[in-house]
Amino acid sequence: MNKPTWGIIATWRMAFDGIAAASQQLQCEVNAEAAVVQAIKMVEDYPFYKSVGFGGLPNEKGIVELDAAFMHGTTMAIGAVASVRDIANPILLAQRLSQERFNSFMVGEGAIEWAIANGFEQKNMLTERAKQHYAKKYRETISQGLSPYSGHDTVGIAAVDLQGDICVGTSTSGLFMKRPGRVGDSPVSGSGYYADSDIGAATATGLGEDLMKGCISYEIVRRMGEGMSPQQAAQSTVNDLEARLLKRYGRAGDLSVVCISKDGEFGAATNIENFSFSVATAAHEPAIYVCTCDNGETTYERASQEWLDAYQARITAPIV
Amino acid sequence: MNKPTWGIIATWRMAFDGIAAASQQLQCEVNAEAAVVQAIKMVEDYPFYKSVGFGGLPNEKGIVELDAAFMHGTTMAIGAVASVRDIANPILLAQRLSQERFNSFMVGEGAIEWAIANGFEQKNMLTERAKQHYAKKYRETISQGLSPYSGHDTVGIAAVDLQGDICVGTSTSGLFMKRPGRVGDSPVSGSGYYADSDIGAATATGLGEDLMKGCISYEIVRRMGEGMSPQQAAQSTVNDLEARLLKRYGRAGDLSVVCISKDGEFGAATNIENFSFSVATAAHEPAIYVCTCDNGETTYERASQEWLDAYQARITAPIV
Repeated sequence: MNKPTWGIIATWRMAFDGIAAASQQLQCEVNAEAAVVQAIKMVEDYPFYKSVGFGGLPNEKGIVELDAAFMHGTTMAIGAVASVRDIANPILLAQRLSQERFNSFMVGEGAIEWAIANGFEQKNMLTERAKQHYAKKYRETISQGLSPYSGHDTVGIAAVDLQGDICVGTSTSGLFMKRPGRVGDSPVSGSGYYADSDIGAATATGLGEDLMKGCISYEIVRRMGEGMSPQQAAQSTVNDLEARLLKRYGRAGDLSVVCISKDGEFGAATNIENFSFSVATAAHEPAIYVCTCDNGETTYERASQEWLDAYQARITAPIV
Repeated sequence: MNKPTWGIIATWRMAFDGIAAASQQLQCEVNAEAAVVQAIKMVEDYPFYKSVGFGGLPNEKGIVELDAAFMHGTTMAIGAVASVRDIANPILLAQRLSQERFNSFMVGEGAIEWAIANGFEQKNMLTERAKQHYAKKYRETISQGLSPYSGHDTVGIAAVDLQGDICVGTSTSGLFMKRPGRVGDSPVSGSGYYADSDIGAATATGLGEDLMKGCISYEIVRRMGEGMSPQQAAQSTVNDLEARLLKRYGRAGDLSVVCISKDGEFGAATNIENFSFSVATAAHEPAIYVCTCDNGETTYERASQEWLDAYQARITAPIV
């Protein structure tokens, strides 16, 4: 029996405020489910994060469509939604659906109607700023023929609590300029997320179409269960999937992951530059790390004040 | 290098005619992709199979909503659709989407609009017979309070071809009386299906909500890759997931799987009675088997004429 501990880790810098708040809660025995859901809700509510919730970038028709999921690693309960519009907090909907034995993964109109009937807050999720991003991208794509698909920065958060429960959740607006109805890995069990309270949890961000070719989050948790450290499990799984994609599919999209073990150890791996993550554990104060990917090895260091300032300036800069 | 061989396996008796036709094609070097897709299309088109395609049972609002997926085990390409209505062959749509680098998993209205714009056949998928099933269930549910969720018999087909390619596909109308927008495991990579041409492929049918808690198809393929026989991999994965579900979730839904290795060996496992499957390989004439589940061990024998007659009588019997 391990000593009770707690920890929480998230993809990207955007989750830091939620992680910092959750760290206060987790040390006071708030459970992992509440910590994950509340931290994701904070990201969803913040209008300047353009890939999650309110302020998320729209699909090619200018409509914000959102995906989210929640998994409880003790009960294995899963709830997920995809392609929902005008629901303020997709993560709350996913969490609620995880309590259902049937119909726990819902999409599109059916999911929206059920959310409304069950009292979930409705909200126009398209901000003025997101409209400006859309208009700019639309002009650029028409004039320069750019690939419209970028900005797929899912928030994924995994937490361990003092009771030994491990939970994971995701939320995203998906690929910017995606086709209406497109779904990525975020609501897909084993790809966007997986949790097992006997082992740990993992969550992914990047090109969902490629992440789901390898069931990346399931595989990371499985490798941790076989004895790999979280860092080894994350790194080896990213490397193996990237190698398989390059060999078989001819190219590999962005693959970035974070994971945490039941002991509160964590790992992060990526095949891109500038992937960031936020973490706090009983042994580790809340912090933001920025990753470097060098020859199949991910290293990371604390985000500098300069990096943080540049980040804040970028997400709030006027769109020209 | 193994000697080239071929084989095809499917969940349920309903796929037999497609399997028999595919066996003729596969021995003439038709590829696994075409064999899988054509065999699934035959099931979708047959009006008396009430859980797939035309004639599939509707959701709680009386609308037929369909899910399907296709995966190519050599390129790892995946295409999937969920919650589509009035499209004649969801498997063709999934196959087509597997050729897309982005937007390869699409759901709901967006998927339907894209299908129509791309020339996929539209068809009213609700048969008179399905309407009668719906009306009967509706009356029973109202009067007797029955759980409306039954009849979730997905067709999943995996094939190996003489060129060494392995493909898998699924198609289903999902849980009878599901909520609009509900998605099961069938379009979910790693849960409803997985294929890797270096190893083999697996596909699942049963309660999607529970199958996706264990990434069951990915895990079966992985275990085959570690050296287990297809039968060992299928059986051990079903048993392990059922045990985890019973311990963690408190109950386990129907879990049935079939798989095939690159050598054309196959396996089937289930935790229910009367799961059937259809198979043909270079070493094995087309046949229908009926499974018995005894204490964690699945055995199967050729369907008797009596069983086949009873099946045909049941699926075509008047609905009273």
